[in-house]
Amino acid sequence: MSEINLNNLPHTIELVNDCGTLVFNYIDQRLLPAELRLVQTSDWRDVVNAVKTLAVRGAPAIGLAGVSALALWAASAEKGCSLEEAAEEIASARPTAVNLRWGIERARSRVAHIGEPHLVETLYELVKEMEREDEECNRRIGERGAALIAPGSRILTHCNAGSLATYFYGTALGVVYAAAAQGKVRRVYADETRPVGQGARLTVWELSRVGIPTTLICDNMAASLMAAGEVDCVIVGADRIARNGDAANKIGTYGVAVLAHEHGIPFYVAAPSSSIDLSLEDGGGIPIEQRDPSEVLPTPLAGVDVWNPAFDVTPACYITAIITEQGAFPPNELAARLSAR
Amino acid sequence: MSEINLNNLPHTIELVNDCGTLVFNYIDQRLLPAELRLVQTSDWRDVVNAVKTLAVRGAPAIGLAGVSALALWAASAEKGCSLEEAAEEIASARPTAVNLRWGIERARSRVAHIGEPHLVETLYELVKEMEREDEECNRRIGERGAALIAPGSRILTHCNAGSLATYFYGTALGVVYAAAAQGKVRRVYADETRPVGQGARLTVWELSRVGIPTTLICDNMAASLMAAGEVDCVIVGADRIARNGDAANKIGTYGVAVLAHEHGIPFYVAAPSSSIDLSLEDGGGIPIEQRDPSEVLPTPLAGVDVWNPAFDVTPACYITAIITEQGAFPPNELAARLSAR
Repeated sequence: MSEINLNNLPHTIELVNDCGTLVFNYIDQRLLPAELRLVQTSDWRDVVNAVKTLAVRGAPAIGLAGVSALALWAASAEKGCSLEEAAEEIASARPTAVNLRWGIERARSRVAHIGEPHLVETLYELVKEMEREDEECNRRIGERGAALIAPGSRILTHCNAGSLATYFYGTALGVVYAAAAQGKVRRVYADETRPVGQGARLTVWELSRVGIPTTLICDNMAASLMAAGEVDCVIVGADRIARNGDAANKIGTYGVAVLAHEHGIPFYVAAPSSSIDLSLEDGGGIPIEQRDPSEVLPTPLAGVDVWNPAFDVTPACYITAIITEQGAFPPNELAARLSAR
Repeated sequence: MSEINLNNLPHTIELVNDCGTLVFNYIDQRLLPAELRLVQTSDWRDVVNAVKTLAVRGAPAIGLAGVSALALWAASAEKGCSLEEAAEEIASARPTAVNLRWGIERARSRVAHIGEPHLVETLYELVKEMEREDEECNRRIGERGAALIAPGSRILTHCNAGSLATYFYGTALGVVYAAAAQGKVRRVYADETRPVGQGARLTVWELSRVGIPTTLICDNMAASLMAAGEVDCVIVGADRIARNGDAANKIGTYGVAVLAHEHGIPFYVAAPSSSIDLSLEDGGGIPIEQRDPSEVLPTPLAGVDVWNPAFDVTPACYITAIITEQGAFPPNELAARLSAR
């Protein structure tokens, strides 16, 4: 087995205080793996745009990016809109992941009684707190999840729920890293994850840096890979999980879950408890973002349209366990376990 | 509903006798839909290469292309190899579709007692006979299949089993055309069919020409499309079908079949009886072609490999009926029905 080096894990976003000026640094993930471009901006709307265009993506990462954007708004000389307007513009940049709105609500509540002179500092400190929390949370998800992984496992994942999707370490890939550090991971199979290619471009790049043996497949190959007995378990992230355990994640996750079920393969969802929306009874209430047809069909053809949902909802019955920083629970126990915290 | 015009269906291959010179004409399907390039060649190895590179593809089409290549070999001044060698080189250009070897065997048997002076003419006549048979067969498949389609149907298909995959009219899309002519087709959903994109490039182009309302989806969207109640039935082609009804078809077909089964949606395989290999007990004996990793991962990454099977095998238990020119049969009745012909 090759040497695993977690020191090569990328930091994809970071808010820094550069001699009194707040700067948001991010990797433009649209350019990976061909180019590793670090972008710096102090304009909050640049951050909103980076989230909308998927330059920054991943539920935990866009939650942090959202609060960072609000801090940049607070630090800007010409605000041009109220805190409420900025918060709403940021929170609605992408609808499906609960983390974005959750982060913004947390920020608003934190600054509710903070005077204008301390707004920037308070929001900056909140971002730093959330960054630490995110990494710690992911490392715990990793430990909890690794306990479920058998030695020699071949793990299939969909999309990218890695360090690139979080502040650091990753959720689904956090489990992979923790299990790999214990010598349990034989290979990761990465779905390419059309149309944006988070698997083909991001997951393989991240795993390649870390040195975990990886095989890229097209989304439509997962079924025969499972039939060939090559998959020991599936681990994916989530953008929002309802009370009953129904989980919204990148489009294609639901299909993989059905296939895993049909082949008797455990299917795990790894996510921080901040991705769990206890206000939703089930997955039917999760808004599903529809994206531009040109992502799928670059050149229009007469009479041909495109259906391009960015997410789907995996019913709880297909999920073996949801791995959170508080433990791995069967979906039907999730609400009770988390309410009891 | 828009006007349907089957006169716009493309002819993708044709062997012509141009004042005594045999010429094979084909559409280079690698360039569609951006460019409709017609290629002409009299070199049999160009045809073999067109089959290998997927410029010409589709089980019935490559069967015909193979016999056409043998006719070009016979017509060439400098043969450079024996009939047996040419036949073997052609038959092994692609391993999965039975039609290629079946066509070559038929040609060899036809010319077994034919003298050199009549070889070209005999093979040319065989190609013309096979072209007529193919079209007639596909029209019958269309009729047989259309009887299974309910009015107002929304039909999901995978890959391209259309006019572009045959001499003319198509198998799975032949059923769509016959049903559309009866006013029964509300919409076709086309899987893009990674990595080569036969759905995204070929099926949508072919359906656009004919005027059938079409929606392109990524392969990984089929599951949530089904869950949304948007698919009334699935129809696909086949490259080889075993005695027990197990069917090899383009990679991803098996996954779609499992999903259809899970959602209670009929799953039909449309293929000429020449795609049925009665010598194989079940699908386990069907060779699966592995293609170049660069089709999936254009730029190599350290530690990352690619699994790129071109086909998968759908077990008979997931197939509602196999639609042949002789009728639509449940897979378990296939061998008995066809043996009785």
